Amino acid sequence: MPTEDPHDLRHHGDSEVRDDGSALVDLAVNVRADTPPAWLRERIAESLGSLAAYPDGRAARAAVAARHGLPVERVLLTAGAAEAFVLLARALKVRRPVVVHPQFTEPEAALRDAGHTVDRVLLRAEDGFRLDPAAVPEDADLVVIGNPTNPTSVLHPAASITQLARPGRTLVVDEAFMDAVPDEREALAARTDVPGLVVLRSLTKTWGLAGLRIGYILAAPETITDLERAQPLWPVSTPALTAAEACVSPRALAEAAHAAHRIAADRAHLVAGLGEFAAAGLRVVEPAEGPFVLVRLPEAATVRRRLRDLGYAVRRGDTFPGLGEEWLRLAVRDRATVSGFLRALRSALG
Amino acid sequence: MPTEDPHDLRHHGDSEVRDDGSALVDLAVNVRADTPPAWLRERIAESLGSLAAYPDGRAARAAVAARHGLPVERVLLTAGAAEAFVLLARALKVRRPVVVHPQFTEPEAALRDAGHTVDRVLLRAEDGFRLDPAAVPEDADLVVIGNPTNPTSVLHPAASITQLARPGRTLVVDEAFMDAVPDEREALAARTDVPGLVVLRSLTKTWGLAGLRIGYILAAPETITDLERAQPLWPVSTPALTAAEACVSPRALAEAAHAAHRIAADRAHLVAGLGEFAAAGLRVVEPAEGPFVLVRLPEAATVRRRLRDLGYAVRRGDTFPGLGEEWLRLAVRDRATVSGFLRALRSALG
Repeated sequence: MPTEDPHDLRHHGDSEVRDDGSALVDLAVNVRADTPPAWLRERIAESLGSLAAYPDGRAARAAVAARHGLPVERVLLTAGAAEAFVLLARALKVRRPVVVHPQFTEPEAALRDAGHTVDRVLLRAEDGFRLDPAAVPEDADLVVIGNPTNPTSVLHPAASITQLARPGRTLVVDEAFMDAVPDEREALAARTDVPGLVVLRSLTKTWGLAGLRIGYILAAPETITDLERAQPLWPVSTPALTAAEACVSPRALAEAAHAAHRIAADRAHLVAGLGEFAAAGLRVVEPAEGPFVLVRLPEAATVRRRLRDLGYAVRRGDTFPGLGEEWLRLAVRDRATVSGFLRALRSALG
Repeated sequence: MPTEDPHDLRHHGDSEVRDDGSALVDLAVNVRADTPPAWLRERIAESLGSLAAYPDGRAARAAVAARHGLPVERVLLTAGAAEAFVLLARALKVRRPVVVHPQFTEPEAALRDAGHTVDRVLLRAEDGFRLDPAAVPEDADLVVIGNPTNPTSVLHPAASITQLARPGRTLVVDEAFMDAVPDEREALAARTDVPGLVVLRSLTKTWGLAGLRIGYILAAPETITDLERAQPLWPVSTPALTAAEACVSPRALAEAAHAAHRIAADRAHLVAGLGEFAAAGLRVVEPAEGPFVLVRLPEAATVRRRLRDLGYAVRRGDTFPGLGEEWLRLAVRDRATVSGFLRALRSALG
């Protein structure tokens, strides 16, 4: 970590609930509650019978391709989105990478670890963290943006993002949370007409597979070939391949779509409840479209500590470039959990 | 793959039993038969209950360190040895890498894919594929050697290998099959007095976890730090971490030690049986110390095809640099399977 950067890019929500935090109600980690579902866990358990064989990713790759209506040559399965960021950072010829912040910090961390100097475009709170395509330097040959964006929960219009595409530029859109958006509105995953487009998807958040390491990259075949060459042999485990195939089945897609609508309703309950604290100076970044919301409030660090004492873990915002100490990220949980959290917040602010 | 190389470095035993090969008796893949054992499969299945959480590798890392009597700073868990090769190829500053062949081809493939020009030291059949430390160029700053070596089954004396150590040189010893050698004779894993030593271990072969992707690197703390920086976040899945911890437990070590002795007995049965075919020109590379043997015989490709027709898959040798069409690698199996194989071989040669 370069010492000049005050943001700990390698801080993630999981460290907020680790160790002594395991007894806390978790609003820090952006993984859907009560996951993986029993049917998925059973499918994965069945795969353990063939662990002695080396993984064969062909069926899972074909299933993912079919789910997006793409040829298999445009799909690369990865050991989570985290591996995808490392592959992009190391395998592509990049001179001037730019990351649009605030966003998930791993892309920048991976680029830096690969020896790149990374420029940041900081979207501004006063603009609602909306993308201004003109803010991205014209000579950037790699641009990374999240949609919907972690931690702002802003869903950029697909048309705004595609304005960033240029000949000679790789445009990476991290759609890790897109399957939590009803109808996957503004998704670019299936688009083949955007030059240099690379879309990342995760199965971790919606399906509760953070521990299994599975995600995928969608891109032009020649880009996929370059990235694949930088992958280790047998990069994705057999249980993870089994999960990938299961999570793009029609049954799973229907379940994810249902969950996306429920998340939207639960988020509305959370945002409405947070409105109550406007007098205390709390502001929600709106419209929130992801399975989490970003809030700004005075004395956020103190409030976070008090919430912890009251049994609730929330995610600090100050490790995200472009945010400071007054920001917190809250995962959307079911109505009862949200109501309990709002009571705790009232107490913490009092 | 550079076109000038006649050896397909990306050919592995698993492709010999894939697809139509699933009905074959497998002497092609170097994974111990009847693995993973039921107790290990159960431990892994239990870990599926916590898949929604991000992997936490600390306990497994500590267990692996303790197994070798090393501090945790000298241990890095990887998604199989394959990931380790990619990390070594990409994270270390290397100008002149040298690979001692014939050996497992992934280290060279990973180095090439990372843009390196790789020099080969070819050990010779007439020397019994024994290491001559003087054959390694003095200016090599990365040397990769396997011990015991796949596919030759030669176990190099630890004292020969340590002669390769130099200030300013990284000496990579792939000990993926060392736990199949009784008493792990000639192991360097626990040594901290050899400058630049990097030891790779796999849990795949002895424990039948090829599908799970788990292995580890043992090296000086500063090397571990460099390699870790090149790893993706959360590189090893929760089920793989659970397996790693289980496979270094006293119970597992005792089971592996027992298996190593059984493999030695089964290998003696195989080698004795192969002696019968000396008149047909078949020669075994001896002494064989790994869970496989390398044989040279006329018309090996024809024999391999005939064995396939008779229901037995063996590994072609010609994809290994330094070997040619007349070589085959045979995995050691239990006595009954070996006897069946020897009958088939008699028929194939007749």
